[in-house]
Amino acid sequence: MKAEEIRSLVRENLEKVAETRPLVHHVTNFVVMNVTANLTLCLGALPVMAHAREEVEEMTAHAQAVVINMGTPSPAWEESLLLAGKTARRLGRPVVLDPVGAGATSYRTRLALRLAEEIRPTVIRGNAAEISSLLGLEGKIRGVESLSCPDDPVRLARNAAKELGCVVAVTGEKDVVSDGDRAYLVTNGHPMLGRITGTGCMATTTVAVLLCSGGPVLELTAGALALFGLAGEEAARMAGERPGTFQVELIDSLHRLTGHIPAGRLLVEEA
Amino acid sequence: MKAEEIRSLVRENLEKVAETRPLVHHVTNFVVMNVTANLTLCLGALPVMAHAREEVEEMTAHAQAVVINMGTPSPAWEESLLLAGKTARRLGRPVVLDPVGAGATSYRTRLALRLAEEIRPTVIRGNAAEISSLLGLEGKIRGVESLSCPDDPVRLARNAAKELGCVVAVTGEKDVVSDGDRAYLVTNGHPMLGRITGTGCMATTTVAVLLCSGGPVLELTAGALALFGLAGEEAARMAGERPGTFQVELIDSLHRLTGHIPAGRLLVEEA
Amino acid sequence: MKAEEIRSLVRENLEKVAETRPLVHHVTNFVVMNVTANLTLCLGALPVMAHAREEVEEMTAHAQAVVINMGTPSPAWEESLLLAGKTARRLGRPVVLDPVGAGATSYRTRLALRLAEEIRPTVIRGNAAEISSLLGLEGKIRGVESLSCPDDPVRLARNAAKELGCVVAVTGEKDVVSDGDRAYLVTNGHPMLGRITGTGCMATTTVAVLLCSGGPVLELTAGALALFGLAGEEAARMAGERPGTFQVELIDSLHRLTGHIPAGRLLVEEA
Repeated sequence: MKAEEIRSLVRENLEKVAETRPLVHHVTNFVVMNVTANLTLCLGALPVMAHAREEVEEMTAHAQAVVINMGTPSPAWEESLLLAGKTARRLGRPVVLDPVGAGATSYRTRLALRLAEEIRPTVIRGNAAEISSLLGLEGKIRGVESLSCPDDPVRLARNAAKELGCVVAVTGEKDVVSDGDRAYLVTNGHPMLGRITGTGCMATTTVAVLLCSGGPVLELTAGALALFGLAGEEAARMAGERPGTFQVELIDSLHRLTGHIPAGRLLVEEA
Repeated sequence: MKAEEIRSLVRENLEKVAETRPLVHHVTNFVVMNVTANLTLCLGALPVMAHAREEVEEMTAHAQAVVINMGTPSPAWEESLLLAGKTARRLGRPVVLDPVGAGATSYRTRLALRLAEEIRPTVIRGNAAEISSLLGLEGKIRGVESLSCPDDPVRLARNAAKELGCVVAVTGEKDVVSDGDRAYLVTNGHPMLGRITGTGCMATTTVAVLLCSGGPVLELTAGALALFGLAGEEAARMAGERPGTFQVELIDSLHRLTGHIPAGRLLVEEA
Repeated sequence: MKAEEIRSLVRENLEKVAETRPLVHHVTNFVVMNVTANLTLCLGALPVMAHAREEVEEMTAHAQAVVINMGTPSPAWEESLLLAGKTARRLGRPVVLDPVGAGATSYRTRLALRLAEEIRPTVIRGNAAEISSLLGLEGKIRGVESLSCPDDPVRLARNAAKELGCVVAVTGEKDVVSDGDRAYLVTNGHPMLGRITGTGCMATTTVAVLLCSGGPVLELTAGALALFGLAGEEAARMAGERPGTFQVELIDSLHRLTGHIPAGRLLVEEA
């Protein structure tokens, strides 16, 4: 699909989101709960955060999409992550898995693999180190920040998608999305996105919101990442190198883009 | 009481808050901890967040008001919510209960009822669906967002107040506050308040701060909601449809209003 | 050391941080997780938050400095705070302990003492009441806000440093840092820093970032507090009395200062 077709697809789905206000359930980490809730709202959807075993299945059943983000994991939360993810898949709802910090500790690597295998998510979005660790490859990661610069990110995404049986997005300076067969390269984005916390998690939430209304998962994931990257570009244009202002402008820009995505600005191409 | 009398009441209590800097203890959810702490400070009071059974009673004993907000509940936190609420009531301190998401899952509905019954809060503030669920009525809720538009919100608030034995605030496009007998209608507010996360929780915190210095609970609750709604109006005037900027302006506006509430702007009337 | 020498020291360490992007591990409270992660990034370092016993030692081993902040404590988190702190010390990494709310409840006082004794942190940073409580003195505290105005903060810091065997920073209107022998007085800062939540925790994180690259702990701690206070001054110059805007400007100012600290603005002197 061409960039302009993907733009139409994104626009259509954002319009459906605005009309239907779908619920996006998050089982996520403590650091980004507030910002990803705000991100969900600025895209037009409704966020909810619930993790207790006593309610997580019931809440999931009300949601049109689910984010499974393991950013501050603990054994008590493992069950919530699994339960929400598996319930959503059983009900045929899209699940986006964010394996935050996989590769940084063996606990996270094991947990990420378990979530990938038992949930069978619709999409996994991570940085190069996180995705590499899911393939048993050595990924260089510092905390939750990838230091890996894979020779061939397209191959990494494609292999991961094949192995894990879902769409995989490897995000970084450039993003690659693959379903194991085809792949898209997304070149939107801005270095300032690395200067505030939670932008990976926000990208994941953006993908989940775009998947609420159905459609081709591969293209919608690529489109969501392009949209988020474009919002980063616009925010950086307003904020310059001011990270506090950038955070505010990022939400403003993303919201503005939900109303109108200028032609030619989503930089997506088949890889 | 007329709007202008309520304005005087609110102003007086905000002045006392500025002088005495009361402590407002929150047992609240992970999503809004930071923003409600900032809101408490911008109103002139001091926030504290503590939940461990080992200290929650002792911390509560230092507080002039307590917020019990069940937004991200779990069995471990249930006891903290109960203990803080019951301790405060035993000591004669005002407690504001926020039954976030009651009606969305049966776990939340049961928990909200248990908190209402065992704590006997001073005020319960929720949206129409949450308050309906406390009466065993069918409230339409999506996540934590009410989709219910009760035919008669005044009747809902009045019935809930009677049944639950406390002041009840039903907030939404318009807010209604009742003690089971009298009722006030508050028409301040702005749609942008629905475009960022945690504004319901912030309204609850505003009520708690206003109750720190004593006075008529019904009027102070109505006045607090009017004040918060007015801050939303002012913030929207500055921010337009930019949700990131709106969040910043909301705190700024509320802080500015603590110094001076213009005459005729609190839209409160007996219903 | 003179203020200008301390400025050089701070500048050098910030340059090393910009080059090496060290990891600063936080075991911290729910209220400030997002803002201290953003603060770490705006200073040029990388934040990570991990608390599960299953990974906390492994994550700590990757970090160049560790923040131990007990702001929302519970028994489950106690072990994480201890484990991260002790692991870091065993590996010779700097640990900054923030005894949030020590003195407010006996549980917090006991926990703070236990963390101080078992971890033997590099630096302890707290307000006058928190530090007093570590010495068994009566500190007036409301929630997590000190109401104590010690007659002689220099003596308090010096005694605490002697007794606790580490550098101690007592922050407030003026900050004092001592190693038990020498002491520095820092007079940067602005009252607006008391009007948003988490500025104590942010000061702690700033110290941790400055300690990542080695150097004299006493002077770097004083320099970090002066830098943070100066950022508060600059932010207040832009934001006036608007606390929402101040929060944004604080991050922006701190980031700008990492690039250039004007001469004569760090107000540090031997006491």
